[in-house]
Amino acid sequence: LITALAGGIGAARFLTGLTQIVEADDLSVIVNTGDDIELFGLHISPDIDIITYTLAGIVDEEKGWGVRDDTFCCLKMLREFGEDTWFGLGDRDLATHLYRTERLKQGATLLQITDEVCSVLGLKSKILPMSNDRFETRIITQDGSVHFEEYFVKRRCEDDVLGVEFVGASSAEPAPGVIDAILNAELVVVCPSNPIVSIGTILSVAGVRDALKRTDARVVGVSPIVAGAPLKGPADKMLRGLGFEVSAYGVTKLYLDFLDAMVIDDRDAALKGRIEQLGLSVTVTNTVMKSLLDKISLAKIVLHS
Amino acid sequence: LITALAGGIGAARFLTGLTQIVEADDLSVIVNTGDDIELFGLHISPDIDIITYTLAGIVDEEKGWGVRDDTFCCLKMLREFGEDTWFGLGDRDLATHLYRTERLKQGATLLQITDEVCSVLGLKSKILPMSNDRFETRIITQDGSVHFEEYFVKRRCEDDVLGVEFVGASSAEPAPGVIDAILNAELVVVCPSNPIVSIGTILSVAGVRDALKRTDARVVGVSPIVAGAPLKGPADKMLRGLGFEVSAYGVTKLYLDFLDAMVIDDRDAALKGRIEQLGLSVTVTNTVMKSLLDKISLAKIVLHS
Repeated sequence: LITALAGGIGAARFLTGLTQIVEADDLSVIVNTGDDIELFGLHISPDIDIITYTLAGIVDEEKGWGVRDDTFCCLKMLREFGEDTWFGLGDRDLATHLYRTERLKQGATLLQITDEVCSVLGLKSKILPMSNDRFETRIITQDGSVHFEEYFVKRRCEDDVLGVEFVGASSAEPAPGVIDAILNAELVVVCPSNPIVSIGTILSVAGVRDALKRTDARVVGVSPIVAGAPLKGPADKMLRGLGFEVSAYGVTKLYLDFLDAMVIDDRDAALKGRIEQLGLSVTVTNTVMKSLLDKISLAKIVLHS
Repeated sequence: LITALAGGIGAARFLTGLTQIVEADDLSVIVNTGDDIELFGLHISPDIDIITYTLAGIVDEEKGWGVRDDTFCCLKMLREFGEDTWFGLGDRDLATHLYRTERLKQGATLLQITDEVCSVLGLKSKILPMSNDRFETRIITQDGSVHFEEYFVKRRCEDDVLGVEFVGASSAEPAPGVIDAILNAELVVVCPSNPIVSIGTILSVAGVRDALKRTDARVVGVSPIVAGAPLKGPADKMLRGLGFEVSAYGVTKLYLDFLDAMVIDDRDAALKGRIEQLGLSVTVTNTVMKSLLDKISLAKIVLHS
């Protein structure tokens, strides 16, 4: 049994490789819901959708999100109505948001709805929202606090990160199955996702960090930082803004209390000794996943780290 | 100044002709909102959309509703999620519903939102929802009371009509401008729409019927019943179910207290004398609008009736 902690695109790439070499139904993925946002009255769960669409084989691989070959007729028309359409909403993708929003109104939990969507899309792996409760990641900028997706998509990560807020973190309970997935796993993988707003959110949910410490599973992290910068997204600005070192070493320190092993990129080979001194085993390999072979190769290395 | 009372497709056809021969900004259309329905959390106003899309020149003329060349990707995906997708929702059309729903949540009225949509679509005529208040037409069938759209679309008008309910009618106020549009007009046209669930709803809103009686405007009706049956829709079953005669004569009697003139179809020429005996002037002409010329020709006759 393997459990992964995942954000969006980076995690999705890694999991694409992993699912090629393990049984899909041996895999549980605990997904960040801090990016969840309400737009046009719809409850959107960006990371759950990215992971779900990816594992279902219907993701738009070029974008990394949304449904392949989706159209954007509705969004274009909303733009004509003067709506601020900074968030990409494809027509097929909209169905997921409409369905989720309607089911939430009917009293279903995010986990139940995710199960339903996965079942329709034929997914055999288990997708676990980190929490069914409201949890909102906000970024404090010079213009004040903005929703993470607003910072990320609308403002293109251009603001300096003065702080990060997890609204709801103090009361958010882990979704049913999250703690068990960590405790019952043989391997827990911390995917190469943003350590603050993708993994950090999951870690802040009550009991998750403790379960990671207590589990008998081997806990392996994959550094999202390569040669001092993330492959995608604003992890560097965030780490720097919050006073952390922007490196595989800096990331390892954030996970130190529960990590058994770390996988870092060839370009960071020089950090191996420093990280090992923290008391973990370190594997150095190519972590930049361009082709499916890169993804599978990285997954194999993580499995044996 | 011309004011029309309108339901959906029949009225839209007639108004297409009328707008060819009168100045668009001389025309106000009071539209039935009894068909409004919430589906997938979206507030849908079927008749307002049909009239708006038609006058904006973007209606799907073959269907009579929706946006021309619209795609249905979202609806297809909703169907995969197991949703009951009996109501047609195109991708572009969805934008209207999302926009309306969001603006309603923000506190805007149906009239304000309709103004905004019309402005975006470049409409110069005034579209007036009959009321900003909740008003729901329900059909009493042997299986109980169902929403009009459910009866009309999902159940394909197959039930016998045991009764019609106007939920909210006793408290629905006319939208601002509705009464003035009737009182200030020189001509009021009752479009060839269902006399019970399209025009009857409008007439049941407080003050509308009284304004039609008081106005100095000439009030002209166009019969939606031709040769004992409606061209479209369930008006015959409804009239019969409620005990009215299914004919231009039966329709005229429903409007008798405010009507000055009635336009009936050639095929009902035999009814002319009987209707005239009710005290109105009657024009007999072709009311079946197949081509744009048919529409313009009927509009001209109504203008001079």
